[in-house]
Amino acid sequence: MARIDIAQRVYNHTWKLDPIVRSLLDTDFYKLLMLQMIWGLYPKVETTFQLINRTRGVRLAEEIDEGELRAQLDHVRTLKLTKKEKIWLAGNSFYGSRQIFAPEFLHWLEDFQLPDYELSRRDGQFELRFAGPWTHTTMWEIPALAIINELRSRAAMKAMGPFALDVLYARAKAKMWSKVDRLKALPELRISDFGTRRRHSFLWQRWCVEALKEGLGEALTGTSNVLLAMDTDLEALGTNAHELPMVLAALAPNDAALRAAPYQVLQDWNQYYGGNLQIVLPDAFGTRAFLADAPAWVADWTGFRPDSMPPIEAGELIMAFWQHHRHDPRDKLLIFSDGLDVETIEETYRHFEGRVRMSFGWGTNLTNDFQGCDPGGGHGLDPISLVCKVVEANGRPAVKLSDNPEKATGSPEEIARYLRVFGAAGRVAHAVKV
Amino acid sequence: MARIDIAQRVYNHTWKLDPIVRSLLDTDFYKLLMLQMIWGLYPKVETTFQLINRTRGVRLAEEIDEGELRAQLDHVRTLKLTKKEKIWLAGNSFYGSRQIFAPEFLHWLEDFQLPDYELSRRDGQFELRFAGPWTHTTMWEIPALAIINELRSRAAMKAMGPFALDVLYARAKAKMWSKVDRLKALPELRISDFGTRRRHSFLWQRWCVEALKEGLGEALTGTSNVLLAMDTDLEALGTNAHELPMVLAALAPNDAALRAAPYQVLQDWNQYYGGNLQIVLPDAFGTRAFLADAPAWVADWTGFRPDSMPPIEAGELIMAFWQHHRHDPRDKLLIFSDGLDVETIEETYRHFEGRVRMSFGWGTNLTNDFQGCDPGGGHGLDPISLVCKVVEANGRPAVKLSDNPEKATGSPEEIARYLRVFGAAGRVAHAVKV
Repeated sequence: MARIDIAQRVYNHTWKLDPIVRSLLDTDFYKLLMLQMIWGLYPKVETTFQLINRTRGVRLAEEIDEGELRAQLDHVRTLKLTKKEKIWLAGNSFYGSRQIFAPEFLHWLEDFQLPDYELSRRDGQFELRFAGPWTHTTMWEIPALAIINELRSRAAMKAMGPFALDVLYARAKAKMWSKVDRLKALPELRISDFGTRRRHSFLWQRWCVEALKEGLGEALTGTSNVLLAMDTDLEALGTNAHELPMVLAALAPNDAALRAAPYQVLQDWNQYYGGNLQIVLPDAFGTRAFLADAPAWVADWTGFRPDSMPPIEAGELIMAFWQHHRHDPRDKLLIFSDGLDVETIEETYRHFEGRVRMSFGWGTNLTNDFQGCDPGGGHGLDPISLVCKVVEANGRPAVKLSDNPEKATGSPEEIARYLRVFGAAGRVAHAVKV
Repeated sequence: MARIDIAQRVYNHTWKLDPIVRSLLDTDFYKLLMLQMIWGLYPKVETTFQLINRTRGVRLAEEIDEGELRAQLDHVRTLKLTKKEKIWLAGNSFYGSRQIFAPEFLHWLEDFQLPDYELSRRDGQFELRFAGPWTHTTMWEIPALAIINELRSRAAMKAMGPFALDVLYARAKAKMWSKVDRLKALPELRISDFGTRRRHSFLWQRWCVEALKEGLGEALTGTSNVLLAMDTDLEALGTNAHELPMVLAALAPNDAALRAAPYQVLQDWNQYYGGNLQIVLPDAFGTRAFLADAPAWVADWTGFRPDSMPPIEAGELIMAFWQHHRHDPRDKLLIFSDGLDVETIEETYRHFEGRVRMSFGWGTNLTNDFQGCDPGGGHGLDPISLVCKVVEANGRPAVKLSDNPEKATGSPEEIARYLRVFGAAGRVAHAVKV
């Protein structure tokens, strides 16, 4: 008879809380880069972040137990940076630079804890808000999303037996590895994991990242997840996000200042980061508007990260911008990161091959692709389009227009005002899957 | 990084029901022996069994969740004999005899399922009753007790972390093994596991039985647990229980018939079983009364199992009975089974060594001794005195007098009547620990 570790088994069947997020570094690297800038330049700004489930058909508050959600959120609030983590942040080099984080910032970060949250339910959805200093509320985005996505996975797997689970993961692994096989065929591929927020689970993200590391070798440039970067000796990757132009735009006192806000962001960023960290995110209020109004120095930056326009269209537009400013795109970098999967990666790679440097930030379809894997044929593990966006800054509404109206956030009145200021050029609706 | 079996881990942390009793054979062997006789001779008798917690200070209904209890009881009701189990019952020899179970009985047993239960709560205790044909209600005793005892263990361990649990079981194993070491010093020892009903948990009972097997070798004569006997290739042991004289006494139409009931049981038994299965359980209505009235043929039986009088006193009394009837006790067998632990086993063994054949049926202190093992110093794992007794037969009250008034069951009026019929000779109260 097989020997059983009774203590281990008793522990396994009396699970109390199995924390989803166990470290403040289990977040995207760009959050830390942005945080240092917010801490330095906007320490008094108050913001509110809010969960937005764009997949309305999935009634999260009916799938996920509110008590379990609170227990997970409460657990994250207890976390503080560990000594090892602080030493690693201070001693590691990021994007080839040492001491990217100022000692005073790291000292401040040592005492950092996440602020309180507001949680209620309405119409089958959770209303989850984080209000307070921007320096604190910004750090809720990734853990909040990772928690809700993993609680949803757990709920979907609750009814599965051990063999169904075994088959589920076997299929997901086989599926993942066949993607790796296809990606191997792209000789100059540069790809990284951007899937923390949408992951099926922490352990699954780790498995996927380690699978990419083994399967792709040098083609895997790193992971956006700081904890995984530390634990697997990969590069921590990421630069900046929409919340920067969104907050600066919300704070703008008039339309002229609003129009200038996207470039103000870059000037602020410039005070902190150079080189490969100078990546423009152009689509907060429309990529065409951004490029049309951009000062010439914007073309000096290392690259762009188009995030809501079809990748080939966006890449061509940005390359035309560089050429217009007499830069050779082959010296420039395009980082694609919007809803990628193997097909779009292959197509985009082949389209731009040899014409521009490229990198792919692979998210949901890397860390949460269980479609067709459930032996019961269920769809509870299909990913949903869940975001946590800044909705207010110093009491003023925040807006994102995006190149894809389906990804816009903000009140209809403010969106109308922003469209008046920035124009609607090039905005085309595409279904948002993930 | 250590490789984790994600499917296994997800399964472990989404425990639904972890069934305590997973087989109808996870019961005491004597239940099957008695069942065959009840099925053959008393198929129309209706009985009610009831849970009795003699450790009133432990408020079971406050320690154990009623929903979990119902889920476990409901699960046992779904169980049926498997093909493998039936084949084993039919093909194995028990007590040296082949085909101890009649094919018609086994055929009937194939469709056997446990009947419904009645569960309510009163004054911090569960009121748990099983009413219906004796052929069915009798089979509830052992699973009901095992379930409640294990649910109580689980409740006590719920708050323990993985290291506390590891230490808890390490201590319990060390404690168990030091008992094995002491028992090894008794050269002619014959001992068996009688601990199913009071076990800490199924897995722990299995560990203890396997430890005895490795540590004591041939001195371990077997286990009362049919499933463990089958799975570990040990002898299944046990003969008969108090419910036989209790039901026959309850059915007796008058005092004369009542007085004859304990011997009627033996005559009934005789129709089914011989040899080493002819073990007299003399204490249902007092051992002295039983011996005083016993016909001479009772001394022809193989042995006695004293169960509520101090073992040395009971053994001497029974040996005197044999000598009175001109039998040499060295040809006879005494089976001790009442609240044994190493001290009482050693003392009894040394007292009777060379004068009579002896065997020890070791229960609670074999399979549920965690006293002093909880690293937190708690007492939630201390065993309690829990029984499940027949309280009614064909609507008439059932009574047990026992040699120890603390173990008596039945209404005060009926107990008084039984005392009038059988006398109170030799009844001395002893605290009932387990």
